[in-house]
Amino acid sequence: MKIAVIGLGLIGASLAKSLAGRAEITGIDRDPGVVDKAMRDRVIFRGGDDPSLARGCDMAVIALPVGSIVDAARSLLPHLGPDTPVTDTGSTKARIAREIESFRPCFVGSHPIAGKENPGYCASQPDLFAGRPCIITPGAHAPEECVRRVRQLWEACGSRVTSMDPVQHDGLMAVISHMPHLLSFASMGLAGDLHIHRGLLGAGFRDFTRIAASDPVMWRDILLDNSGHILKLLDDYVRELGLMRELIDSLDAAGLEERLRTYSTIRRNLYEDNR
Amino acid sequence: MKIAVIGLGLIGASLAKSLAGRAEITGIDRDPGVVDKAMRDRVIFRGGDDPSLARGCDMAVIALPVGSIVDAARSLLPHLGPDTPVTDTGSTKARIAREIESFRPCFVGSHPIAGKENPGYCASQPDLFAGRPCIITPGAHAPEECVRRVRQLWEACGSRVTSMDPVQHDGLMAVISHMPHLLSFASMGLAGDLHIHRGLLGAGFRDFTRIAASDPVMWRDILLDNSGHILKLLDDYVRELGLMRELIDSLDAAGLEERLRTYSTIRRNLYEDNR
Repeated sequence: MKIAVIGLGLIGASLAKSLAGRAEITGIDRDPGVVDKAMRDRVIFRGGDDPSLARGCDMAVIALPVGSIVDAARSLLPHLGPDTPVTDTGSTKARIAREIESFRPCFVGSHPIAGKENPGYCASQPDLFAGRPCIITPGAHAPEECVRRVRQLWEACGSRVTSMDPVQHDGLMAVISHMPHLLSFASMGLAGDLHIHRGLLGAGFRDFTRIAASDPVMWRDILLDNSGHILKLLDDYVRELGLMRELIDSLDAAGLEERLRTYSTIRRNLYEDNR
Repeated sequence: MKIAVIGLGLIGASLAKSLAGRAEITGIDRDPGVVDKAMRDRVIFRGGDDPSLARGCDMAVIALPVGSIVDAARSLLPHLGPDTPVTDTGSTKARIAREIESFRPCFVGSHPIAGKENPGYCASQPDLFAGRPCIITPGAHAPEECVRRVRQLWEACGSRVTSMDPVQHDGLMAVISHMPHLLSFASMGLAGDLHIHRGLLGAGFRDFTRIAASDPVMWRDILLDNSGHILKLLDDYVRELGLMRELIDSLDAAGLEERLRTYSTIRRNLYEDNR
């Protein structure tokens, strides 16, 4: 099994490490230092920055930021057979699927839900996907064999694979990932001169703001790519805050308690062990 | 050293456990089951629900929800000498200090920053305060000896004690604790039927929403008690979201990246190890 991995960052290199010994990995990355390191680490079998290196591979995985995936898919096109499965690992799926499917029928998007705040080759690890969810998002006309092989790829890495329509995926991710990131980012706008009090920060603040340290370029692309869902949720959220504001401003203790209890119950029901 | 602890919940019982063997603790709680359990566990020396049990103690610690602290202080009044230090452990300080100081000069508020999502006696632990910050908030006229003894109490539990004006405390807590809780609570308003996708929730969502499982009654009281600071910050935050909305809606990639980079840098500078 020969697999081309385009992008040897956290996700691409973790995938390569996870498949070590079971597949022959070709690594394509614009950074020659990363390619060298991956070669020395025996994470990849061969590598470079030329898309033609993918020639002869049985599958191609594009593990690039969402803003670069479609261009990468286009540049691979001349070097892959028509039935060679292509997938990506982006956090948004609808636009990418729509654009790639217009020139490449044998494509099935993937989204392994297994990020970390620290990106890059050096943060990669072979067990990044083990036991973690991975959503695959086959379009309506995706060939069955292509879907099957993309699913197998992630199962081989230990992922729990779920299949979903690309638009449904983006709607769900807007709620469970994109909005939390946006809201946590924006809370830093209140932080002002907080560093002088950093010794007083508690566990709640640390956890709530952890994702505000995420990569700005990656999140710029995700927020713009999924802007439809996000703008709608942002309006819903501001409305929710408006209701809270009214209850606090009018000192409506009973109303405020009821609302907080509703929120608290929703959160408690999401996690059985309440962590 | 004899100490009366009013309220044997998470904070009060942890304080009693932390001082075990070094102080004789009288536990005052309206729940006879909790008093019994604390007696059997030898966490308290004697207990009951009558404030007169505090008679003869060298210090009183009111570890009740912020809505009940002033009443408890008033009910202790006839049973304590005029120089016996009284403190509390509430998450808001300005109103409580103002009201108690009007009838009890020997009072210094405390706020141990050491909560957990799970409240109650059973969640208490002797090392809850070890290495954690505790803010004490002496009023302008607090007797020096009273300040010294309240500071010593928390140092004896292993806290790192900081002193601060009560109003400054509430302003700071609004930023680092009350707003994160409010924003995390409100995000549950977007969760809808998310439980059917609970297997797909990632670490970012889990951490961002953890504090949304907090106790509704406790947080009702905190949000109402500190409403002045919170309403102002809520308006600032909605303005911040409005700027993000505009950048996303107009697909302003450069502007959005710049803003996200600012947020990300603020967060990274708050924690040297970026956790």
